[in-house]
This record gives sequence, structure tokens and C-alpha cells, in this order.
Amino acid sequence: MPLSQKDVLGLRGMPREDMETILNTAELMKYILKQNNKKTPHLQGKSIVTLFYENSTRTRMSFELASKYMSAVAANMAASSSSVQKGESLIDTGVTLDQMGTDVIIIRHPMSGAPHLVARHVRSSIINAGDGMNEHPTQGLLDIFSMKEKLGKVEGLKVAIIGDILHSRVARSDLFGLTTLGAEVHLAGPATMLPAEDFKKLGAVVHRKVEDAMKDADVVMGLRMQKERQQKGLIPSLREYYDVYGITPERMELAKEHAMVMHPGPMNRGVEIASSVADSDDSVIAEQVTNGVAVRMALLYLLTRRKGEEI
Amino acid sequence: MPLSQKDVLGLRGMPREDMETILNTAELMKYILKQNNKKTPHLQGKSIVTLFYENSTRTRMSFELASKYMSAVAANMAASSSSVQKGESLIDTGVTLDQMGTDVIIIRHPMSGAPHLVARHVRSSIINAGDGMNEHPTQGLLDIFSMKEKLGKVEGLKVAIIGDILHSRVARSDLFGLTTLGAEVHLAGPATMLPAEDFKKLGAVVHRKVEDAMKDADVVMGLRMQKERQQKGLIPSLREYYDVYGITPERMELAKEHAMVMHPGPMNRGVEIASSVADSDDSVIAEQVTNGVAVRMALLYLLTRRKGEEI
Amino acid sequence: MPLSQKDVLGLRGMPREDMETILNTAELMKYILKQNNKKTPHLQGKSIVTLFYENSTRTRMSFELASKYMSAVAANMAASSSSVQKGESLIDTGVTLDQMGTDVIIIRHPMSGAPHLVARHVRSSIINAGDGMNEHPTQGLLDIFSMKEKLGKVEGLKVAIIGDILHSRVARSDLFGLTTLGAEVHLAGPATMLPAEDFKKLGAVVHRKVEDAMKDADVVMGLRMQKERQQKGLIPSLREYYDVYGITPERMELAKEHAMVMHPGPMNRGVEIASSVADSDDSVIAEQVTNGVAVRMALLYLLTRRKGEEI
Repeated sequence: MPLSQKDVLGLRGMPREDMETILNTAELMKYILKQNNKKTPHLQGKSIVTLFYENSTRTRMSFELASKYMSAVAANMAASSSSVQKGESLIDTGVTLDQMGTDVIIIRHPMSGAPHLVARHVRSSIINAGDGMNEHPTQGLLDIFSMKEKLGKVEGLKVAIIGDILHSRVARSDLFGLTTLGAEVHLAGPATMLPAEDFKKLGAVVHRKVEDAMKDADVVMGLRMQKERQQKGLIPSLREYYDVYGITPERMELAKEHAMVMHPGPMNRGVEIASSVADSDDSVIAEQVTNGVAVRMALLYLLTRRKGEEI
Repeated sequence: MPLSQKDVLGLRGMPREDMETILNTAELMKYILKQNNKKTPHLQGKSIVTLFYENSTRTRMSFELASKYMSAVAANMAASSSSVQKGESLIDTGVTLDQMGTDVIIIRHPMSGAPHLVARHVRSSIINAGDGMNEHPTQGLLDIFSMKEKLGKVEGLKVAIIGDILHSRVARSDLFGLTTLGAEVHLAGPATMLPAEDFKKLGAVVHRKVEDAMKDADVVMGLRMQKERQQKGLIPSLREYYDVYGITPERMELAKEHAMVMHPGPMNRGVEIASSVADSDDSVIAEQVTNGVAVRMALLYLLTRRKGEEI
Repeated sequence: MPLSQKDVLGLRGMPREDMETILNTAELMKYILKQNNKKTPHLQGKSIVTLFYENSTRTRMSFELASKYMSAVAANMAASSSSVQKGESLIDTGVTLDQMGTDVIIIRHPMSGAPHLVARHVRSSIINAGDGMNEHPTQGLLDIFSMKEKLGKVEGLKVAIIGDILHSRVARSDLFGLTTLGAEVHLAGPATMLPAEDFKKLGAVVHRKVEDAMKDADVVMGLRMQKERQQKGLIPSLREYYDVYGITPERMELAKEHAMVMHPGPMNRGVEIASSVADSDDSVIAEQVTNGVAVRMALLYLLTRRKGEEI
């Protein structure tokens, strides 16, 4: 059993050994992904279903292609929030898929903890593809993979994450994964989007000024600004947001030379990040997408190896 | 040619021999479905398309996974009722798919008889996945398969079906299939949802009281109550419905000891059935889902064997 | 490298040699498509994604089945126009898919030139599946394939295209392809839908009367009338449209004996074409659908052969 757990629900509490197994396997998967013939038999005879209660194009497609590249039976379950107003019917949906022979169910849900609820009632492995404001572990893993690939290590890195921390399940998963692996996580963003005390307890270094977070950073990561936050009064205006919190070429001067630039996408160019920074040689934003497929291939492979089979 | 007909449009009039061929083949398919590697080459090179004009998650997914487990080329045709206001364009859609090389087209449509209409114009086999208030033959077959699997036979069984009989294509397909195979079907439900004379003509025993239908039953099946029926005045309230027609632990005492509990899903727990009954050891509700995949695998296999090929 | 270009964005300017390569390959693909076992390994290990910003059932399904018949990894990207209000995010979406390892991205978009924009930013091949009022090259190719298959040649044919020329990307692709291959294209339709001077410059013979266009034609093609054109005042009424521009049995008398009848579908029977003409022995309308799959198989195969691999 390559991983210590049936499900991947979050990076909080995931053992360092599991993370390392995933990262090492993803390296092999990325090699396969770069071949002319990307098809492998790793998931032959396995059944993988995505169950998304929130719209998503890139994460869902990333999982779908990862499954299909490895020869799995892959299907998307059409789900709408309206059909799951009660927790109970979410469980019944999970049990139904489980009974249809699925090996892995990949769940995205607006409610924190929803994948955990299903995981307790099914034989299938559950992967959390984003639950409310809680976690998005495969994004965390692909971010960490990208750092390790480019910088050769994770331990000891100074990683600055800038923007709407409060609503970001990406930031939370990154924080949990990076601290487990010995990196330092520095956060900055509008005070309305960064409850400092809460995040300090989780192990982050919280800054009032973006400049302080980015100073000497090895990695600078922007987060997507949901434009509706402005209407809710959490930020003054997109232009002012950029002026105070944007990842600009000037602010990049504060970070280490050739500091790595990251963003989970899709980007608002000119809001949270300058186009010139996003497209610079130090940016791995496009590469992160490829790494996402590789990390998901690794995870699907490891989770379906649980019963001791070999290819 | 393993089945006597090109299409599976309903259980009304389906020869007993065809049903037995399907049930026996489904047994093999269920065995395959329980393996670690569920992939089989039975539908290699065949093309299966679902064409659903009503929302459905479980039936569509069941057909999709059944097709993919057997290595078919499988696709879902996005269809909306709006695009088929005229019968003619439904036929044109069927002919178009047929011309694209499909071997089986699986149709769900709000209009009774819609799949029959398409079947007359195409070379592909048509499977009716539910047409209006008429039939849902694969549900009927999976229900019968479940009874035979658990109780060892169908002939001579007393099967009680409880609830909204009028609107239930499941009840109709079960009735036709079970009477062909020699079981007795007893029906009970609100008078507004059970036109007694019509169903007596179809071979059912109709009761005014649920207790009479369930008395000494080998099998008790609940049907999904569409909550909008209440607004239409067909039932007083969901609570009162449960009190008078619900499948409760007390009423289960009237049936045979260890009588089998069934429901086509999704359930309204506490409306048509008590949660404790649905989750009891005598319930096969979860198993019905697995059996649905097995029966659909069998049907797809048998229909595509029509031209005398062997694997 | 079987084709001279990475992408298939239109038939305007496509070299005659490329068209002939595609048409010859499609002949082989059609042969495969007619077999009991339609599965081929031609796209094994290749990844094909459709990205449709306009609703389409038949074109998308045709590409999806073509991909799957050839063993590609195939996926549909859910796209809505709302999510691509800016050209920039269309490019970002294309780049994201590209980074996920796609080999071919098939794009339909309401904006003319949208696929060209993406093509300049990605490594994947782009196929234009319809861009605004500009081109729909695979429809043009399947139309030409159908003519060549039935009439034995394209050069020297007189092809009459009747109806809403202005809004028809099909008519434009047909015009470019047919003139390149030496056929004569005659156009007729309401003056509001046929800016004569523009189309003359593109090489067409433009007629005021349908009868003149159809006279001695080898091929008569109707175009779909978008019913909303009537509200916009471009035609008086559907009935009057049929009287003046409909492809009727009487008007077919003007064309050559057994002139071939075509329509890209879906048809408005009794508006742009009489049902008796559409269903006559001279009609290849149903066959066009099959040819569409064959042509798309050929194209996908040729585009993914670019790097010199052999099967």
C-alpha cells in the first residue's frame, strides 16, 4: 500500500512520506506525459469518476485527461448544487457511484468537509478537488512539485503567497504541505482577506506589507482575485488593489534574483499580477498546468495500487 | 442472434426466453464487475451513444460505465427538449447518430413512444431508458435480476409495489416482466395515483390498503414520490403520505420474514420509506445499483452480437 | 509531414495538394467506418479536445466519435461565451489545454478568427469547427468528399448553393474549396442575404433567381435558414421564402438529371427544401453525416502524423 490512507482529502496532517511518494511518482508521470505517445496502462480496468458541484474547467479536465492517459474508464457525473441541498443526498450519490464499481471518486463541492463525508461511506478512494474554503490538495501538491522541480528542493525555501488568502483553499493546502516539508510560508494581502492570528496559528509568517512578504523570497505566488470581492467591500478597487498588492516588476526586485513566479490560474492580468511578470522567464505558470496532470496521474496510480496489485 | 428483436423498447410483450437470456448473461457480467480489473473486450469496436431528453444522473452514468467497462466507444449526446419540439427532428437526430456509425442508441424522452419512433428509422439498436409514463425496461430487468439473485427464483413470488404507480414507468416495466415470468404483482398507493381498473387489466392485483398489498409479500418495493405531486393535489402532505403509505418497520412485519426491500432510487427517506428499512439487512437497494450496471452490460453485449460475430 | 500546415483554419488558401491528401485519406477512413469493428489504433496515445463556445450537437459528436474510433484520448471542454468575453482569456484557455498535453484542439467560436488567434499561441494543432460567419472547413471538405465519391470528380462540376449565403460559413468554405479544385460555384438567395459584389470577388457566379443558379447544375445544395432571420426582416416569411427560394421538385427539373442533393443539416423541411427532395434517391444528405466522420478521422490522423511517426 503505497500511501498510508485510502483518501486524499487534504494536505493538513498528510505524512511527509506520503508527499514524497507522490512527488517522486509524479516525476515519472511527467516523463511519460512528454512522450509522443502519452497512453499508459497504469489504470487499465480502473474506474474514475469526477463529481463536481462547482463549475470548473481546468481542474476537471486535468483529472479527466490524467485518467484517460492512464487507460482508466473515466466519466463525469453531472451534478448541480440544487440536487444536493441535503448532506444525505450527497452521501447517497457517493454510494451510488461506489456501487457502480468506481475505484476513485473526485469531488469538488462548495461545502468544506463534503468529500470527507462521502469518504466515510464508500469503498472507493476519494480525492478532494476543492471543498469550500478548506483545501485543494492536488493544487498544493502540484505547486510543491513545481518548486522542487525548478529549485531542486523544498526544505528551507522562502515562499511568499500574496492576495486573497482568506478565501483560498489553494493557499491553505500550500501552507500545510510546505510547512510539513520544511519551507517557510510568508503571507500578505488586504487585512480584510487575511485574518492574521488564524494563519499564524497554522504556521505562516503574516506580513502587513506585500514588500515584506516578498523580500528575499525564493518563490512568489499570486492568487486569483475574485472580482465580486470588490462589490462585497473587501477591496477598494481593482486598480488600487494592483497598486498596493499586485505582483509588479518593481516588487519582484525585492525577491531573490530569478525568484520563481507562480499562479494557480486563471489569472487576472493587471489585477493580481503584471503581464510582464506572468510571462517572464522566471514564471512557471504554464508549466504548473502540465505538472498538475502529472501529479494527478501519480495520485490516481498510487490510490488504485492500494490492494497490492502490480502492473 | 441471441435476442429475438433489434431493440429493447419495453418488457411488455418481450418473450420469456429473451428475458432469461438477459438475466443469465447479466450473471456473468456481474462476476466481471466484481473483479479488480473490470475492463473486458466485449464491446470492442462498437459505438454506444446516450441521447437523454430528461435529466438523469444515475441511469445515464450506469449505461456509460457499462459501455466503457466493455471497451465500447461511448459518447453522450447533449439533448434538450427545446431542440425537439417536433417528432420529426427527434427522428432526424436518431438518423444522424445512426449515420455516424452508432451500434446502440440509448434514449430517454418525456414522451411515451419516442424511442419506438426512432427505432423504426435506424439501423442501430435502440434501448428505451425511460419514455414518459410508459416503460423503463432496464430498471425492470435489474429489479427482476435482483429478486432472482437473492431469492433464487422469480416464479411464484409475491411482489408488492407501493406508491405513485400512475406516474411510474418502473412499476409498469416491473409488472410486465414479473407477470411474464410467473410472479404475482400486488399494487397499493393513493387512489389518485392508482387507476385500479387499468392496472387490473394489465394483470396486477390492486389493493386499497398498503397493508393488504404487503401481507405475506416476498418482496416489497417502494417508488420515488415526486415532491411536486403534493402541489398538484395528488397527495395531502409528505408526512401524511408516510403515515398512510410509507414502508415502515411496522408494516414490514406483515410481509414474509426477511422479505426483500427494494427501491429504484433516489430515495426520499422518511417519505416513501423509513431509513431503518432502507438500510436493513433485508434491503438490496444499494445492490440494485450494481445489478443495473450488470444488466445493462448484458443487454449491450447481446444487442451487438446480432450479426453473428464472436469475440 | 503529410499536410503543409500545423492547423486547419479554413479552405481559403489551402493548397490543392493538401485537399487531395485529405480526400484520399478520408476514403480509407470511410472503409474502416463501415466495418463491424470500427476501432483503429491510428490515434493511440494522442489527445484530442473539443472547445466549443457555441452549441452544437452534430459537429461536436462527429469529432468526438472520429477521435474515439481511432483510439485517441478524447475530451470535451465545457465552454461558455460568458467566460471568454476577452480575447485574452481565450488564448489562456488554449494555452492551458496545450499544457495538458493535447495534440489537437477543435474550436468553435462565434467570433471570426478566434481559432486563428489560439493557433498562434499553442504547440497543438487547431481545427476550426466554425468561426462566426467566416469558415467551417471540415464541412467544406466533407461536402467536396461527397461530390467526389458520388460523381467521381470535382473539377468542372457546376455546384448551386441556395439560401442564406451571407451568414453561412459552410457556403464560404465550400466556395473556397470548390474553386481551388476547379468546380464552378453558383449562388442564389434573397438579396438581403447575398451581397453579390463581395461574393463575385471570391470567385462565385451570383444569380438573382434561384432558377438560374440551379440550371444544369450537377449538385444542388440548400443551406439552413435560421428562423430568427425573419424577425430581423431579412426574409418576408418562411412560406414565401419556400415559394421563391425553396429547393422544390419542380426546380430540381432545371438541374441535370439525377443532380445530387445536399444539405449540411439540420434541415428545416418545407422551408429551404421540400421533404420529397431531401429524401429522394438523388439526395446524399444522410450520407454526408457519415462522410463527415470519415473526413474528420482523416484530418485528425494527418495532423497528428506531423512529427514523422508511423503507426
